[in-house]
Amino acid sequence: MDARLENQLKFIQEIDQLKSVDRVSLLINSSRRENTAEHSWHFALMVSILAEHADTDSLDIPKTIYMALVHDIVEIDAGDTYCYDEQGYEDKSEREVAAAKRIFGILPDDQGQEIWRLWEEFEEGRTEEAKFARAIDRLNPFMLNFYSGGKTWVDNKIKKSQVLKRVGEIEHNTPKLWGLCYIFDRRCY
Amino acid sequence: MDARLENQLKFIQEIDQLKSVDRVSLLINSSRRENTAEHSWHFALMVSILAEHADTDSLDIPKTIYMALVHDIVEIDAGDTYCYDEQGYEDKSEREVAAAKRIFGILPDDQGQEIWRLWEEFEEGRTEEAKFARAIDRLNPFMLNFYSGGKTWVDNKIKKSQVLKRVGEIEHNTPKLWGLCYIFDRRCY
Repeated sequence: MDARLENQLKFIQEIDQLKSVDRVSLLINSSRRENTAEHSWHFALMVSILAEHADTDSLDIPKTIYMALVHDIVEIDAGDTYCYDEQGYEDKSEREVAAAKRIFGILPDDQGQEIWRLWEEFEEGRTEEAKFARAIDRLNPFMLNFYSGGKTWVDNKIKKSQVLKRVGEIEHNTPKLWGLCYIFDRRCY
Repeated sequence: MDARLENQLKFIQEIDQLKSVDRVSLLINSSRRENTAEHSWHFALMVSILAEHADTDSLDIPKTIYMALVHDIVEIDAGDTYCYDEQGYEDKSEREVAAAKRIFGILPDDQGQEIWRLWEEFEEGRTEEAKFARAIDRLNPFMLNFYSGGKTWVDNKIKKSQVLKRVGEIEHNTPKLWGLCYIFDRRCY
């Protein structure tokens, strides 16, 4: 087998581990915690279905979908950092950069660099695609929490002010979807 | 909230259930069975990483990725039919068409029809995108089985001839990846 294909297969094998990274969010049916692989799938489809509500007429939808698919691969090494875990956020960036180096480095250079750039673009949140993706990445757990009765907010004693701060990126990046945050009754501590 | 957005949100809520549809394949670490949502994520990334091995220079990669993301949504109603379950295959098509009608019908018409067409194109397997996607959808559980020691083949008493027949679509659709089926030692009953 040539080295390029071999490295591609190694990466495909490696990312299977994302299915074992648990997030704090529950499935809507509350049966268990969601993992990061299935979250990435749900997030990618939300991008596609809700793209018309982006704050731009020129959103590159395929790019934003691909961004959603790869945005959390670093969690294989770095773990999922709960968005209300202030201590966890202190070294989140450092942990994730090390993870990106190792995991994206498995791929042939051109492919590894493409994913690295997308991941970095998402983290920086400056382009239209990154802004929309970040808003949808906020909206997703907000919806899951709402439909599953707000249990993870109650259990983790999350205050309304914390939720509002967290979803502020929706207001700023996708004003057309901001109204949802009022329609969804906020069930928080 | 306008009816269009309301239907989009209903669909997003509905497809959360795909995370609770279990497939026969195990995760590579053998800790549990894989579900269809995380499979769809893995499959979509395999499409992207392996696209250069398609048997065409003009593969529409974003379309093929989107096909991977939606190809199994019908399993929410129809369940996962194990590829070696001959009895299950008898009414698979009927069950899946009914599921497609109900689930894609939740979306605004234009979006529901777009996903319906992609799902149908995948099932028919005639376009370059569908042929490549179908080959990768075969390769994915083959890889998981290989890396997890072939346990699901052994447990379900699947014969080598059945595996060879199943992966025949890889040989036919993506000859450049067919060699993998020899390199992966076939650990089957």
